[in-house]
Amino acid sequence: MTSADGAPRYAVAGLEAHVADLFRAGGLDAEKAAVVAQVLVEADLMGHTTHGLQLAAPYLRALDDGSMTADGEPEVVTDRGATVVWGGRRLPGTWLTVRAVDLAIERAASHGVACVVVRDSHHIACLAVYLRRAAERGCMVMVASSDPSVVSVAPYGGTRPTFTPNPLGVGYPTDGDPVLIDVSASITTNGMVDRAEREGRRLPGKWLLDASGHASDDPAVVRTDPPGSLLPIGGMDYGHKGFGLALMIEAMTQGLAGFGRAEPPRGWGASVFVQVMDPALFAGADAFARETGWMARACRASPTVPGVDAVRMPGDRALARRRRALAEGVALYPGIIEALRPFAERAGLAPPTPIVGAAAGPSA
Amino acid sequence: MTSADGAPRYAVAGLEAHVADLFRAGGLDAEKAAVVAQVLVEADLMGHTTHGLQLAAPYLRALDDGSMTADGEPEVVTDRGATVVWGGRRLPGTWLTVRAVDLAIERAASHGVACVVVRDSHHIACLAVYLRRAAERGCMVMVASSDPSVVSVAPYGGTRPTFTPNPLGVGYPTDGDPVLIDVSASITTNGMVDRAEREGRRLPGKWLLDASGHASDDPAVVRTDPPGSLLPIGGMDYGHKGFGLALMIEAMTQGLAGFGRAEPPRGWGASVFVQVMDPALFAGADAFARETGWMARACRASPTVPGVDAVRMPGDRALARRRRALAEGVALYPGIIEALRPFAERAGLAPPTPIVGAAAGPSA
Repeated sequence: MTSADGAPRYAVAGLEAHVADLFRAGGLDAEKAAVVAQVLVEADLMGHTTHGLQLAAPYLRALDDGSMTADGEPEVVTDRGATVVWGGRRLPGTWLTVRAVDLAIERAASHGVACVVVRDSHHIACLAVYLRRAAERGCMVMVASSDPSVVSVAPYGGTRPTFTPNPLGVGYPTDGDPVLIDVSASITTNGMVDRAEREGRRLPGKWLLDASGHASDDPAVVRTDPPGSLLPIGGMDYGHKGFGLALMIEAMTQGLAGFGRAEPPRGWGASVFVQVMDPALFAGADAFARETGWMARACRASPTVPGVDAVRMPGDRALARRRRALAEGVALYPGIIEALRPFAERAGLAPPTPIVGAAAGPSA
Repeated sequence: MTSADGAPRYAVAGLEAHVADLFRAGGLDAEKAAVVAQVLVEADLMGHTTHGLQLAAPYLRALDDGSMTADGEPEVVTDRGATVVWGGRRLPGTWLTVRAVDLAIERAASHGVACVVVRDSHHIACLAVYLRRAAERGCMVMVASSDPSVVSVAPYGGTRPTFTPNPLGVGYPTDGDPVLIDVSASITTNGMVDRAEREGRRLPGKWLLDASGHASDDPAVVRTDPPGSLLPIGGMDYGHKGFGLALMIEAMTQGLAGFGRAEPPRGWGASVFVQVMDPALFAGADAFARETGWMARACRASPTVPGVDAVRMPGDRALARRRRALAEGVALYPGIIEALRPFAERAGLAPPTPIVGAAAGPSA
């Protein structure tokens, strides 16, 4: 079966199993490999194609060269009940973040609010994946991430790349579907700029700043010497807003972790802030869902601007894509399966085969 | 003494005392009156002229007509240690928020993180004021606010005003000055639109949406029938970011408070979310300040875009204005003293007199 645009579709369970096999062959134990595969495939199901399986090949290379740690547990730096700091030991960030979210949910059930901060994690992929996990268990969750070893966004008014796009994900339940918010403090992301550059495209707007301080839509400006940067949310006009959000996330991640840019760079990775609030320990889960459900319905009922058919809540599109992918298989962005082929060959694994004919559902 | 632009300057302590006298005459007890006056004057010291003393006359009118409660304490809806929900009983929001921040600081000292959510508060004025209070005590603080009885921002893709600009304030210490971030989820604020309309000006950019769904810089579009709205951060291009932040704040405030737009409107007011994290109970206060101080220095050291003399951290300008105002007196936005004159006359109070000659310092 192929999707409407002709791209092949893959059964989700089979794809997850294949990716887990690749990570086991790369050195992870079965549990870590399964979680990493599940997180990456889930990102593609939700349409976050720059932060899903596209990251599998770089992650496998990081296992090969030892920059991603394969074995063991995070180190507990502090544990005060409602606040926990882990040293991530460069373990897979996707696995660490799932563990951090689960711990924060558990602790929030007794404290109402709980924060788990992870320093020295490897890269954590797509934030939206972690949100659904907590929101479907009735919690309001916030996940934020920065990479102390990477600079690609300049402070507002400045030109020197000084921090990362710094994504912020927030999920919460309603009386219907959860709301899954996933924004970065920069207008666009490193992944989108890389992809536009590879494909010879301009960005949809002047979302970059060249090294001389002028707005640009040309992805090449981030590779000059000195380099340009990604503009913060608000761009040239009100970029103090994106700058402020980026600083908030730097402080929540590296500040609370006590480890970051003030230390020597440790390579591609992340500092992660996870917070869970349990509405049951505030004014009650039902009252929370009544307010958030009311708001979701009010937004969806709004008349629309020209060219828009309906207002969508954050997460609506991703959840619809996910449901379709679970039913019909997932269409991957071009090149993703090809990038994994050398790892599959080395491990003696057959590449996943697209769904054909009527066997469209998930394989398990 | 007059300021460089010829506006009269007022000694801070004398101005605070005068405003406190007005609120005592309006019905508040001495402690509440002093806190309300201090918060409003402090906003003007920091340059937030739409959210400082400009609000004193409307607050005094609200005391007169009973829509602001003068007496008593907030009702404790729940208290779980790290999470507290108050019913604000329409008490002065500035006083409630100061109390909420102080309680959150106290609770964070034992739990690491603490949240105080206030429902049914009166208006809370300027978020930046509350941030300095917590940051100077070594804490990372977040204050967010929405007004369940007001609609002025539409969901991204829609045209019907459905929620408020929803400000988010974040403060944190460094090894130097604190960082004070104060952004709203909309590009501009209700106060800025009102002021531009009164003064017959256009906004600096197309930051509004008319009722037919087209971007506009004309403040009159928010008064049409049906009304236009304030655009979320990101505007027509990537307004899903501001929409997401606004929804996050609606959920943190009215969702966790269990009381908001799903209930009948209660008039001008606020639902408030206050969160304090104590870095000492994460990876340590020194490690936090090392990271945040490093980042502040890196940002300030950046080369600048054309037309900008130096990168400023959020709060730098406000703190510099505050220091100057404390030394030389504060210059108020035109019309503010005049708006208070009827209340002063009714109370038999002399209006504050500008500083003259060399007596420029604070009067106490």
